[in-house]
Amino acid sequence: MDNLALIGMASIVTAGLTITIGSIGPALGEGKALAQALNAIAQQPDEAKNITRTLFVGMALVESTAIYCFVITLILIFANPFWNYFIEKAGG
Amino acid sequence: MDNLALIGMASIVTAGLTITIGSIGPALGEGKALAQALNAIAQQPDEAKNITRTLFVGMALVESTAIYCFVITLILIFANPFWNYFIEKAGG
Amino acid sequence: MDNLALIGMASIVTAGLTITIGSIGPALGEGKALAQALNAIAQQPDEAKNITRTLFVGMALVESTAIYCFVITLILIFANPFWNYFIEKAGG
Amino acid sequence: MDNLALIGMASIVTAGLTITIGSIGPALGEGKALAQALNAIAQQPDEAKNITRTLFVGMALVESTAIYCFVITLILIFANPFWNYFIEKAGG
Amino acid sequence: MDNLALIGMASIVTAGLTITIGSIGPALGEGKALAQALNAIAQQPDEAKNITRTLFVGMALVESTAIYCFVITLILIFANPFWNYFIEKAGG
Amino acid sequence: MDNLALIGMASIVTAGLTITIGSIGPALGEGKALAQALNAIAQQPDEAKNITRTLFVGMALVESTAIYCFVITLILIFANPFWNYFIEKAGG
Amino acid sequence: MDNLALIGMASIVTAGLTITIGSIGPALGEGKALAQALNAIAQQPDEAKNITRTLFVGMALVESTAIYCFVITLILIFANPFWNYFIEKAGG
Amino acid sequence: MDNLALIGMASIVTAGLTITIGSIGPALGEGKALAQALNAIAQQPDEAKNITRTLFVGMALVESTAIYCFVITLILIFANPFWNYFIEKAGG
Amino acid sequence: MDNLALIGMASIVTAGLTITIGSIGPALGEGKALAQALNAIAQQPDEAKNITRTLFVGMALVESTAIYCFVITLILIFANPFWNYFIEKAGG
Amino acid sequence: MDNLALIGMASIVTAGLTITIGSIGPALGEGKALAQALNAIAQQPDEAKNITRTLFVGMALVESTAIYCFVITLILIFANPFWNYFIEKAGG
Amino acid sequence: MDNLALIGMASIVTAGLTITIGSIGPALGEGKALAQALNAIAQQPDEAKNITRTLFVGMALVESTAIYCFVITLILIFANPFWNYFIEKAGG
Amino acid sequence: MDNLALIGMASIVTAGLTITIGSIGPALGEGKALAQALNAIAQQPDEAKNITRTLFVGMALVESTAIYCFVITLILIFANPFWNYFIEKAGG
Amino acid sequence: MDNLALIGMASIVTAGLTITIGSIGPALGEGKALAQALNAIAQQPDEAKNITRTLFVGMALVESTAIYCFVITLILIFANPFWNYFIEKAGG
Amino acid sequence: MDNLALIGMASIVTAGLTITIGSIGPALGEGKALAQALNAIAQQPDEAKNITRTLFVGMALVESTAIYCFVITLILIFANPFWNYFIEKAGG
Repeated sequence: MDNLALIGMASIVTAGLTITIGSIGPALGEGKALAQALNAIAQQPDEAKNITRTLFVGMALVESTAIYCFVITLILIFANPFWNYFIEKAGG
Repeated sequence: MDNLALIGMASIVTAGLTITIGSIGPALGEGKALAQALNAIAQQPDEAKNITRTLFVGMALVESTAIYCFVITLILIFANPFWNYFIEKAGG
Repeated sequence: MDNLALIGMASIVTAGLTITIGSIGPALGEGKALAQALNAIAQQPDEAKNITRTLFVGMALVESTAIYCFVITLILIFANPFWNYFIEKAGG
Repeated sequence: MDNLALIGMASIVTAGLTITIGSIGPALGEGKALAQALNAIAQQPDEAKNITRTLFVGMALVESTAIYCFVITLILIFANPFWNYFIEKAGG
Repeated sequence: MDNLALIGMASIVTAGLTITIGSIGPALGEGKALAQALNAIAQQPDEAKNITRTLFVGMALVESTAIYCFVITLILIFANPFWNYFIEKAGG
Repeated sequence: MDNLALIGMASIVTAGLTITIGSIGPALGEGKALAQALNAIAQQPDEAKNITRTLFVGMALVESTAIYCFVITLILIFANPFWNYFIEKAGG
Repeated sequence: MDNLALIGMASIVTAGLTITIGSIGPALGEGKALAQALNAIAQQPDEAKNITRTLFVGMALVESTAIYCFVITLILIFANPFWNYFIEKAGG
Repeated sequence: MDNLALIGMASIVTAGLTITIGSIGPALGEGKALAQALNAIAQQPDEAKNITRTLFVGMALVESTAIYCFVITLILIFANPFWNYFIEKAGG
Repeated sequence: MDNLALIGMASIVTAGLTITIGSIGPALGEGKALAQALNAIAQQPDEAKNITRTLFVGMALVESTAIYCFVITLILIFANPFWNYFIEKAGG
Repeated sequence: MDNLALIGMASIVTAGLTITIGSIGPALGEGKALAQALNAIAQQPDEAKNITRTLFVGMALVESTAIYCFVITLILIFANPFWNYFIEKAGG
Repeated sequence: MDNLALIGMASIVTAGLTITIGSIGPALGEGKALAQALNAIAQQPDEAKNITRTLFVGMALVESTAIYCFVITLILIFANPFWNYFIEKAGG
Repeated sequence: MDNLALIGMASIVTAGLTITIGSIGPALGEGKALAQALNAIAQQPDEAKNITRTLFVGMALVESTAIYCFVITLILIFANPFWNYFIEKAGG
Repeated sequence: MDNLALIGMASIVTAGLTITIGSIGPALGEGKALAQALNAIAQQPDEAKNITRTLFVGMALVESTAIYCFVITLILIFANPFWNYFIEKAGG
Repeated sequence: MDNLALIGMASIVTAGLTITIGSIGPALGEGKALAQALNAIAQQPDEAKNITRTLFVGMALVESTAIYCFVITLILIFANPFWNYFIEKAGG
């Protein structure tokens, strides 16, 4: 069990957990907003355009926290500076 | 218990957990939005088309967080850079 | 406790957990949507056809997250690349 | 504690957990839908046939996630490829 | 602590947990449906027969997930293929 | 710490947990149904007989999941096949 | 730490946990039913006798799950077959 | 760390946990019933006597599960058959 | 780490946990009842005396479960039969 | 790591946990009662004196469970019989 | 890792946990009471003085449980009898 | 791993946990109170000044529990008596 | 397993957890605010501009806590002072 | 695994946890307040200025608990007295 394997394992497990736990909050938050939007359209059909626009801008903001997690996951898998360091050292 | 087995085990376990935990949030969020959509249609049948369209666009956005998890799962199983590195080293 | 057994154990446990945890979210989400659909039909019987159609399309979308989990479970049991690698090596 | 025993233990424990955790979501979801259906029938007795039909089709969809778990449980007990591999090897 | 004892212990513990955890979901779901049924009868006494019939058919469906767990429990105690294998080997 | 003691301990602990966890769901579910029944009687005293009958039939169904747990508990204490096997072997 | 002490410890701990966890569900369920009964009496004083009778019959049913736990607890302390076996063996 | 100390420790810890966990359910259940009783008296002062009587009989039933736990606690501290056995053996 | 220290540690930890966990249920239950009592007095000032009396008798009953825990705590600290036994033995 | 240090550590940790966990229940319970009292005063200003008196007597009762915990904490820190015993022995 | 370090570590960790867990209950309880107070003032502005006074007296009572925790924390850091004992012994 | 490192690690971890867990309660409590205040202003704009004043005085009281945690955190990092003792000893 | 690998592993795991747990609160909070905003627009379409502006300013404030987590994550991955120290030492 | 690495690891992990857990409470609390503010504006558009001002002052107060956590995180990463001590000692 050398260093490279340890760093690799930690990266794999963390990458998976980061995106999976990070998807719970946004999915629930967006679902709630979406549900309320449909309700609002039903109550005030004349404002549907306005409501939908606010909804999608807002959901993009909520989605941004999921994007942060996705970016960190991809960095951990494909551009991990710790892994790169040990690869270099192993290859040196 | 050499490095390859460790990396393999970590990949298997993480892959499974990523998709399974990642499916909880979207499933609940979509279920909630869907439930509210049906309620909205019942209240305002004339807006059914508008509501349904907003619903499916919104659900696609929520589903996207599940897709992120699914993509990471597939990468961990079929295109895992850490596994590939050790396979190469073992095969070298 | 050689590598093959470890990979096998990890696959078995992960496969089971993946499908079982992955079934909680969709089951609850679909149950909620279904409950609301029946309520909507009772409120607006004239829209029953429309409501039912939206319900089943929506439930299919929710079910998709369970399907992802099921697919990963089957891959882990019957087409596991990590297991195949070690089987080949053991058989070599 | 050889490999066979380990694989056996993992299969037994996972099989049990898969079906038992997998039954929580569907049971709660179906119970909720059923409760709402009875409420809907009480509100709109004339639609009882329609409501009941939607209810049972919907419950079958929810039940499907429990079926997935049951199938995986039976595969783990009676058609476990990992166990079969080790049995063959032990018998070879 | 030989293999037979390990398999036995795992079977005992798993059997107990399977039926006990598996009874939580159905019991709560059925209790909820039953509670709503009584409420529905109070609201619409004329539909009592219809409500009761739907209730018991639905509860049977919910109960089915408890039955799955019970079947797996009995298989693990009385027809456990893993235990049988080791018994045979021990008796051979 | 020989096999017999291990199997004994596992049986004792599992037996206790099986009945105790298995009593939570039914107790809560029955309590909820009972509470609603009393409410229904207060709302519709003329239907008291009908409500009470449905209540007790339904509670028997809910109780059945507790009975499953109780049966497994008694089997684990008084008719445990794993324990019997080891007793025989020890007595042989 | 011989077998007898292990079996004794397991019995003591399990006995305590069985009755204490087993008392949570019934206590909460009965409390809920009792609360609703008082509410029902306040709403419909003329049905007080009927409500009280249904309440106590129902509570007895809920209490039964606590009784199961109490019986298993007493068996584990005073009529434990596993303990008796080891006592006999130790005294032999 | 001989047998006597182990049995003693297990008894102390179990005794404490039994009464303390066993007091959560009844305390919450009784508190809920009591709260509802006061509400019922405020709504229907003329039934105060009837409500109070039902309340205290019901609370006694709920309290009974706490009593079971208290009895087991006292048995574990002052009349523990496992402890007595080891004391006798140690004194022999 | 001799027996005496072990028994002492177990007694200290258990004593603290017993009273502290045992105070959660009664405190919440009493707080709920008290809150409802104040509400009831506001609704029906003429019944304030009756409500207050029922409140304090009921709270005494709820408090009793906290008293049980307090008694066991004091027994464990000042009249612990297990500790006394080992003290005697150590002093002999 | 001699006995004295062990007893000291157990006392410190238990003392802290006792008062901190023991403060959760009373704080929440009192907060709830206080919130309701203010509501009651707003609804029925003429009864403010009566409500306030009942509130503070009731809160004293709820506070009593926190006092029990505080007393045990102080006993564990300043008048710990187990610690005193070992100090005496160490000083002898 | 001598005794002094152990006692020091236990004191540090316990001190921090005591004040931090002890702040959850009072903060939530006071927040709830404060929220209700503002609501009450909005409903009955004429009673603002009375409500505010009752609020702050009540909050002081709730705060008292946080004060208990703070006192114990300070005792554990600055006047810890166990630490003092070992310092003396080490300095002797 | 000498004493100094242990005390240092414990201080770092405890300091972080103290402020982070200690911020959950006040943040939620203040958020609730603030939300209600805005609601109260909307209902009774004429009392805005009074409501705002009570809000900020109350929030200061709630904030005080966060301040306690912050103070303890700073003491643990910058004025830790246990750390100082060991530094002195190490430097002596 | 030298120091560098340990620091690397800790950084990877902490970085992932920081952003993923840190995204739960803001996502839920923003989702809730967004849902309420849509509701508010439906109730008061004339204030849509005002509501939307307040919404996005407020969401930026909530998002700030996610930004803090993201900043710390990036610092831990790309500008970690602890890692830099050990790299320097290793390279020296 | 020398002292420096231990202190470094503890600092990294604690820094990450401090800011991430510390962001949950404020994010939820602010989200709730923001949601209510939008509701209040919709109800009372004339008070929008007053409501918005109170909202942002209040949110700043809630945010302060997140700031405390952020400050502690930065201290642990960039101005950690424990790390500095060991660096000095290592460099001496």
